[in-house]
Amino acid sequence: MNLEEIQNPSFLKNYSNKQLEELAVDIRQFLIEKLSVNGGHIGPNLGVVELTLVLHQLFDSPKDKFLWDVGHQAYVHKILTGRADKFDTIRQYKGLCGFPKRNESEHDVWETGHSSTSLSGAMGMATARDLKGTDESVVAIIGDGALTGGMALEALNHIGHEQRDLIVILNDNEMSIAPNVGALHHILGRLRTAGKYQKAKDDMEQLIRKIPAFGGKLADTAERLKDSLKYMVVSGMFFEEMGFTYLGPVDGHDLEELKHNISYAKKVSGPVLIHVLTKKGKGYKPAEDDATGAWHGTGPYKIENGEMVKKAGPPSYPSVFANTLKTIAREDERLVAVTPAMPGGSKLDLFAEEFPDRMIDVGIAEQHAATMSAGLATQGLKPVYAVYSTFLQRGYDQVVHDICRQNLNVLIAIDRAGLVGADGETHQGVFDISFLRALPNMVILNPRNENELQHMLYTAIQYDDGPIAVRYPRGNGTGVKMDQQLKRLPIGKWETIQEGADAVILTFGTMIPVAEKAIERLSQNGLNVRLVNANSVKPLDEEMLSNIAKEDIPVLTIEEAVLQGGFGSAVLEFFNENELHVQVKRLGIPDWFIEHGSVGELCEEIGLTPENIADTLASMIPRQQKRA
Amino acid sequence: MNLEEIQNPSFLKNYSNKQLEELAVDIRQFLIEKLSVNGGHIGPNLGVVELTLVLHQLFDSPKDKFLWDVGHQAYVHKILTGRADKFDTIRQYKGLCGFPKRNESEHDVWETGHSSTSLSGAMGMATARDLKGTDESVVAIIGDGALTGGMALEALNHIGHEQRDLIVILNDNEMSIAPNVGALHHILGRLRTAGKYQKAKDDMEQLIRKIPAFGGKLADTAERLKDSLKYMVVSGMFFEEMGFTYLGPVDGHDLEELKHNISYAKKVSGPVLIHVLTKKGKGYKPAEDDATGAWHGTGPYKIENGEMVKKAGPPSYPSVFANTLKTIAREDERLVAVTPAMPGGSKLDLFAEEFPDRMIDVGIAEQHAATMSAGLATQGLKPVYAVYSTFLQRGYDQVVHDICRQNLNVLIAIDRAGLVGADGETHQGVFDISFLRALPNMVILNPRNENELQHMLYTAIQYDDGPIAVRYPRGNGTGVKMDQQLKRLPIGKWETIQEGADAVILTFGTMIPVAEKAIERLSQNGLNVRLVNANSVKPLDEEMLSNIAKEDIPVLTIEEAVLQGGFGSAVLEFFNENELHVQVKRLGIPDWFIEHGSVGELCEEIGLTPENIADTLASMIPRQQKRA
Repeated sequence: MNLEEIQNPSFLKNYSNKQLEELAVDIRQFLIEKLSVNGGHIGPNLGVVELTLVLHQLFDSPKDKFLWDVGHQAYVHKILTGRADKFDTIRQYKGLCGFPKRNESEHDVWETGHSSTSLSGAMGMATARDLKGTDESVVAIIGDGALTGGMALEALNHIGHEQRDLIVILNDNEMSIAPNVGALHHILGRLRTAGKYQKAKDDMEQLIRKIPAFGGKLADTAERLKDSLKYMVVSGMFFEEMGFTYLGPVDGHDLEELKHNISYAKKVSGPVLIHVLTKKGKGYKPAEDDATGAWHGTGPYKIENGEMVKKAGPPSYPSVFANTLKTIAREDERLVAVTPAMPGGSKLDLFAEEFPDRMIDVGIAEQHAATMSAGLATQGLKPVYAVYSTFLQRGYDQVVHDICRQNLNVLIAIDRAGLVGADGETHQGVFDISFLRALPNMVILNPRNENELQHMLYTAIQYDDGPIAVRYPRGNGTGVKMDQQLKRLPIGKWETIQEGADAVILTFGTMIPVAEKAIERLSQNGLNVRLVNANSVKPLDEEMLSNIAKEDIPVLTIEEAVLQGGFGSAVLEFFNENELHVQVKRLGIPDWFIEHGSVGELCEEIGLTPENIADTLASMIPRQQKRA
Repeated sequence: MNLEEIQNPSFLKNYSNKQLEELAVDIRQFLIEKLSVNGGHIGPNLGVVELTLVLHQLFDSPKDKFLWDVGHQAYVHKILTGRADKFDTIRQYKGLCGFPKRNESEHDVWETGHSSTSLSGAMGMATARDLKGTDESVVAIIGDGALTGGMALEALNHIGHEQRDLIVILNDNEMSIAPNVGALHHILGRLRTAGKYQKAKDDMEQLIRKIPAFGGKLADTAERLKDSLKYMVVSGMFFEEMGFTYLGPVDGHDLEELKHNISYAKKVSGPVLIHVLTKKGKGYKPAEDDATGAWHGTGPYKIENGEMVKKAGPPSYPSVFANTLKTIAREDERLVAVTPAMPGGSKLDLFAEEFPDRMIDVGIAEQHAATMSAGLATQGLKPVYAVYSTFLQRGYDQVVHDICRQNLNVLIAIDRAGLVGADGETHQGVFDISFLRALPNMVILNPRNENELQHMLYTAIQYDDGPIAVRYPRGNGTGVKMDQQLKRLPIGKWETIQEGADAVILTFGTMIPVAEKAIERLSQNGLNVRLVNANSVKPLDEEMLSNIAKEDIPVLTIEEAVLQGGFGSAVLEFFNENELHVQVKRLGIPDWFIEHGSVGELCEEIGLTPENIADTLASMIPRQQKRA
């Protein structure tokens, strides 16, 4: 069928399994074609085609609520709720969001992006339903990886206690973004194979009947035996212990099995967990065969053979990060790397090839990763807590209470700092400077290129006075020549990249080349603007700032981070604290959430462009100088 | 014995049980006496006397590592490690800390205050040990309440997976700060009674032997039966499923039973969880009989009858909070309150008396509480997420990603904002303005007294444009007359409390009376300082700030929160953004962690005093005015 004609999912109600099967084929074809152009989360979506079809057939969205955990697997849901016609724009500026978005459709009742939030959101909705006395179903669809996130476990514990009607679909594809770690993973592994015990269970029941009748002295034992039998017959004892009715495992590509179990779950009172086994990339061989996780989210690819369109370019920041750690680790036994489920994204998998014992993947567990790093540091090791800026938000208290307060030597390697592009507002790494700068003992560095990154990492490992955060952007480096010898950089000392006496730009990281372009423009008008690499965001280079104040020269701060409480704000605070009167303007991210689009488009939207920087500077420079 | 003569715990090595018992009596007597003077966490410490004695007898601290989760139960540990002589100063300014503190003793290897961090810290230490090839034991002591915290569950999952040697003592007193909620609580409840099944287990084993030998066709079943028997025989299946060896339940006041189990645990390889049952307040009747949780942490009390010394005073902020919610809830069915295990501290227990279905205690689960509130808000309810400022740090990502980003109508009631006094640096609520102000859609209000608090709460519930945080201090209100009629306050409009043309103080909350005293001092020198109640911390009153700029009058901002990125910083940003040139000084909390002491002493330390405010203002006012 023409998917672009779908207005809403009501047409599915009377679809036969055969019709659903045909539709599944069409949807897969559509996804494979559409995503080949600009990329997207192809693997997770191909895995949930049947599941999404059955959910929309058996429930009435938007009355019934679907909460898609993480949300990158909601493409099929988007197609079935009337958005296929916009798929050419997915994850592009002003286009369809790659995650559920409430202002896109009434069927998107819960926005996600970060993992492990769906159970808490669902519990809120189920509680609201019961308080209001309405009767909608609430269904959270969560992956096996997201289940290890602390907040999902908090929610499981609370849901199991409250016993409200609520359905959790555990979408178990045996591989979240990274292969799962954790005891829960082993539990799920055992459950996956439980199906073959069906015959054994039947035999067992027969056997039990042969046990001689209980005498009086065995009365206590009877209850115990019942529990024990339950363990034998019910596979999901872990979830049953948590207060859920466990159903499964269910073949997530078998429509009949899905329907049977989900229909049954609707009838059960209290929380139900349906354990659904799906295959990531199902129906597209290159994605099904994915060994490396590359098909979780892709760029453009050739449909016929799955060849990914690789852009040649300088090494990525994460690969420089991982290689530098390797180099340091060869000399320094103290270095240990900790990642919350991002061995691939952080490139720590490269590090682990050489140092398998010194790379610890804790699963989706940003809090535990932070505090475990603190624990490692108490014993004289030098842990590197590698985390994306946006996910560091989830370890915030641990950074405050365990790392900064104990003033431990933890290197927080903040990847994807700044605007991240297509993932959009849930993933922008723009708050970290503000929330970290408020903390005592914290040092924040930000390199201008991959060469400076390697030196900063080395510096951070040598540093013995407490925590250091090194933040670097998503994507490729600048292609700068890499020094062969790592060196220790001074902290709180900025670098003047270009001299100039008419004004000073204080900036760092990705904004340096943008500022350079602005300076070039102005130089054509005879203005000489100084460019300072303010690579130490905390502490500031107080000496340089004092000297700038003496010069009485206008200052423009530029940051790819929120303005409120950010770097420019720190500069204002310094001048204020020291009663230095300097003309300052600040450019950065304004007080709203920045949606998806290319980083260039987003920078355009918020004025982080050479043009706007040049105009701002021009407005700050006194007239006589401009005429000069 | 004279406890003050103890230098370190090595003397315990050869103690007989009888000697330990006598020592336990002495320690209890000591704690009951010492804490009666200034108060402290008496209940939790009386509960762990035997446990702490046995730990120090069987392990070699500081080589072996004890991590006391939350840490308010570490008093006995402090006594045994040579600090009894300083107990008169506990929780007082420059005195012994109420929590483990690394600079106090080499035996305090891990600092706590917030809950649920010990397992992650222990995992870090155990990993460091294995990497370094040393052989110390790592022991985390965690309460049943703290175990529901998401990060503890993340850690359990990771520890169970990695299988390193590590001992977890689950100190189950059936009551954390609040009675436990959650499925785990039910699991523990069942385990507590498991002891009496011992006989049943024996019978069962006998019975199993009578089952006819398995035939070939039952081969698969055999393995299954083994698992099943394990469930029957091993009580702690939940923990066993998570990868731990479960021992218990153990009577935590029976020295022999403790020794037997802990000694055994030392021999087991891989992680062990010892389930120890203790009684809070053990050995002191008033604390043992505690029904309300008042003996968890107390002020001074009379030893003979446990009568607590109550200070008469105005109603506390939490009680005004709870009573106001009640009043609003009677008219507004949408109001629902959510607390992460603080029904008593937040006084929501008062609210629950009238609205039991509309008060949801989720256990120690700040993340889930925040996101569940977001879920409630999506359905048109008006959730009140009641949380202490310091614990809100743990729900930060949920506030960013789920509440602010979805722009949902959640009222975040931030209790214990500002300095908290005796609990010290782990509990100071001083970062919230900085970390919340950075977030789009966030409104932050801070009342000057309990009357303004009630109106702000009403305002927040009426507000329909997104999240609002209302932050208020620990302790009693100011005794101001309470209006009978709740009213809606304008947001972003400040109130001039006192006129004056020589300078302006912008402040809010607890700093208003301090500022008033400073103004009184200055008025004696003929200076007239204006006092503004800047009760809307975000958004600022931009109109008033613009008018102040026109007046060209010096501005002093004062806040009981960190200066970096705080309220004063916001004022600087506004003036900067609008190119308004105003003389500004900022007083607030400097860039270090503030230890314990009375709020008055701490304010003295950091210059938040009438004297310093007056001096600062005097230095800002031009000479001619001062002479006038």
